[in-house]
Formats: sequence, C-alpha cells, structure tokens
Amino acid sequence: MGRVTVRRPVLRLTEGGSSRRQDTLAAEEPLELRISGKALSVTMRTPGHDVELAHGFLLTEGVIGAAEDITTARYCDGVDAQGRNTYNVLDLALAPGVEPPDTSLERTFYTTSSCGVCGKAALDAVKLKTRFSPAEDACRVSPETLVTFPGRLREQQRVFDSTGGLHAAGIFTADGGEPLVVREDVGRHNAVDKATGWAVLNGRVPLGGTVLVVSGRASFELVQKAAMAGIPVLAAVSAPSSLAVELADEQGITLVGFLRGTSMNVYTHAERITGS
Amino acid sequence: MGRVTVRRPVLRLTEGGSSRRQDTLAAEEPLELRISGKALSVTMRTPGHDVELAHGFLLTEGVIGAAEDITTARYCDGVDAQGRNTYNVLDLALAPGVEPPDTSLERTFYTTSSCGVCGKAALDAVKLKTRFSPAEDACRVSPETLVTFPGRLREQQRVFDSTGGLHAAGIFTADGGEPLVVREDVGRHNAVDKATGWAVLNGRVPLGGTVLVVSGRASFELVQKAAMAGIPVLAAVSAPSSLAVELADEQGITLVGFLRGTSMNVYTHAERITGS
Repeated sequence: MGRVTVRRPVLRLTEGGSSRRQDTLAAEEPLELRISGKALSVTMRTPGHDVELAHGFLLTEGVIGAAEDITTARYCDGVDAQGRNTYNVLDLALAPGVEPPDTSLERTFYTTSSCGVCGKAALDAVKLKTRFSPAEDACRVSPETLVTFPGRLREQQRVFDSTGGLHAAGIFTADGGEPLVVREDVGRHNAVDKATGWAVLNGRVPLGGTVLVVSGRASFELVQKAAMAGIPVLAAVSAPSSLAVELADEQGITLVGFLRGTSMNVYTHAERITGS
Repeated sequence: MGRVTVRRPVLRLTEGGSSRRQDTLAAEEPLELRISGKALSVTMRTPGHDVELAHGFLLTEGVIGAAEDITTARYCDGVDAQGRNTYNVLDLALAPGVEPPDTSLERTFYTTSSCGVCGKAALDAVKLKTRFSPAEDACRVSPETLVTFPGRLREQQRVFDSTGGLHAAGIFTADGGEPLVVREDVGRHNAVDKATGWAVLNGRVPLGGTVLVVSGRASFELVQKAAMAGIPVLAAVSAPSSLAVELADEQGITLVGFLRGTSMNVYTHAERITGS
C-alpha cells in the first residue's frame, strides 16, 4: 500500500544556518478492528501487516490461540474524501466456538472490580488468560548470543533508517540463528503484536525456545504479550518497569534489560542464561 | 506514597563477569479513573501526581476546561491483599453542567462510524473538541532558547537518573525562563497529562506562550494533547509521525522534532521560530 512512510517538507535549523528539504516520516493512521462488524478497538499504527497486527492483538487478549481461530480478515470497502479505500478498518470473523472478546472496560482487569485494583490484580488477570506456559520452557541462551540481537534487530529496521521514528520487535531463536520475524511500528505494542501475529499465522505459537527483542523499554504489557505467546525470554534495550519484572517472575519468563554493547541486566529467571 | 521507584535484585552481566546487586526500577501500577463511581479508564502509570493525571486526561478528552469543572477527586478506600490502600482508584465528581464523557468505543473518533475511518476523521475529531486555539497565539521562540530545553528537561528528571526508565514532559515559557512544570512517567502520554493537568489545577490553561517539550517522539496523540491545552509549540527530542505533522499543521501548532545538540527540524508553522 506504500503508506509506511510519508514525505513532508521540513525546515532544518543548525548553528550553520537553515535549509529547506523533504523529510521522510513514519506513517501513522488509525486502524479499527471489528469482529463480525462490531467495533472492538482503534489503535494508531503504521499501515502494513495489519492482519498480523490483528492476530497478535487477539492473541494477547486471550481470544485466539491459533490461525484457524480466525476464518476471515478483510478490509472494509470504505473510502476517504478522495474516493480511495482507507484500508483502515479490518473486519474479522471468528471460527465457530471461539468466544468474541468482552468489550467492556472491565475486561482490562477483572470483572468483580472492587475498589482495590492493584498490580496483583493485573498479574492475576494475565494468569487467567494464559494458554501457554513459558515457565516450563527449558531453553538456554548465552550472553554472547544475546548481545548480538540489538544490532541485528537494528539492521532489519528498514523504515527506521529513513525516519528515525519507529519501534522494532524481533523474534529470534535462542540459538542465535536468523530472526523468525522483525516488525516496526510507531507504537511499541503494535510492533510486538505484528511479530506475534506473524507467528500465529505461520503456526509458530507457542513460541518455545525463542527470544523476543524490543528496541525500547519493557513494560507490563510487553511481558503480557510474551506470556500470551509462550515466549520464554524477553530482552529489551532499555529499562523494565517494576510490574514488568513482577509479571515476568510470576510467568516464568527470563527478563533482560539494558541490553547494550556487551552487557545486560537479568531481572528474572537467570537460569536460562548460560554461565549464570 | 513512596512508590515512584521499586528496588529489585538484578544479575549484572558484562564481559568482565557477573555480579548481583539491587537495581532501582520505575514503578508501574494500574490507575483506574471513575466519574461518580462509574469506571472511565484504566491506565498503567507511575504512581504520583494522579490528580494532575486525571485533570490532564479529561482536558484531552474535552470533558473539562478548568479546575472548577471537577469538584472533588478522592482515592477509593480499597485495600490490597496486605490490607494497604492501593491508591490506584481515583473517583472524580464533575461540577453541575459538565457533561460526563461518552465511554463508548466510538468516542475515539466520530459516532457516524462508516467504513472509512482515516487520518482525516481523526483530525476532524480533535477540531470538534478543541476549546482553545493555539493558531492565534503570536508567541515567538528562538532556536537558541529551544536547544536549551532538552538538557534542562533532563536535569529535572529525578527518577530517570535512578531508573533510566521514564519519559518526561515539561512546559517551558517561550522566553526560556524556568519550566512551569516537569513530570515523569513510564507512559509518555501520562507524563504529558500530568503536566497539562498541573496547568489546569493552577489556572494556567490555555497555555498561551508556552512550549511543550517531550523526551521521545511526537505522535498524533501528543499533538492532540497540546492542542487541547492551547499550547502553541511542541518540541520533541525524536521523530514525529506523519499524522502528528498533519494535526499540528491544521491546529496552528509549531512542531519541532529531532531537537538535539544545536539543531532541529521544524515541520509546521515555522513563523513562530525567530529568524526563520
């Protein structure tokens, strides 16, 4: 669809003076997901790999566990003011027997919402939804392999090179082979959803023996996505949050942060890191 | 409440070997906002400045325009498993005549949701909600002043120094004086909501003659927050997205990106940058 980047004029100011030129920006557009015509969510994303994004999103939500849980995914035929299809509304049909998601606000955590919503409730909600248990994954990964991942992720970030504006997520095998998939997006969650959605579509879920590598920080929601996809190791270039560490600990996920140069911090389940 | 950071043990691996130590993490906890007891939203945020966060969030949603639109804000008295108040549910009461927000999914864009949701619809939705027009703000800011902002924002990031894990947002006056407010959060949107919420509570909205400085990228939603607060200049350390530039252009906001060292890119409304 050729809308991954957009060209815009820009005024460049430096100490040496000013110049006008064309700049390449990461495209951002709303994507509305529907299930059998009913609106489910709107997310601001970089167009492209939308069907993967939808699969990854519904995997995290606990709605689907495999490609056959979604029977069709098609763009609505709506058009913009210029009469062009927007490709911004994706309608999905679930297979018979697959429960559609609860779209009420309370779905985020638990339905018996008392006055005490806390980190513990968020952790419990993930526990209830998880189909695959990363905890039993006996894979091992060496520090020497881990330190290669950020550079290799960066090499595959084609759009970042031109815009500087995208997050990346890649799924690598623990033995350090070629990445299974690398995806970019203006939203960090979307980049991970596109990567895990690729895995759903290719029959690779649960993602045993793999490492999810992300270009930024590790938040609660990224650990949740790893847990729902059965990924045993999450490695982030930047810092994790407190709740990310708690959830990784509880879900049996190895959480690595500050993976830069030749060093890293291992926050949970260091038993998967060889030599530890 | 002392929960802005959390201490956790970590295994540090470097080429030279491994060591165990305590690491300081940015705290992340869910915050549920309610209006008169009815759930409105749940966001993952760093605890602290929650009342500001609520005001900034409702300013962006177009629900409030001034401090007096919210009459009370109180934490529910729910407790966690250890019997401690979670301080994670904030219940707000709106002043008579203030319409509560529409909590349906369609509120995100427009209610006559045809099949053609697109960037244009998102831009139009902001136009409908804006109370203050940054377009008419005749303030000027010099490149020499702008380049000082990222360093000064960084100086005030107390939690980042210990955790490396937080986004920051600061509101500066265009003449380069002391920042009005600087806030940090694990979520970039939350950091901006806390800053604009501070302004609401202190009678500083609309924020004419100010510059909103953010530590990361400039997305559509951050430009929307600037527009809703009447901020005429948004300056980001990293890249803007395509829709961020479109919205800034349409709302009359000066959008600066890649503000690093002594240089910057001006994407829209360069007339506010002196010498341009």
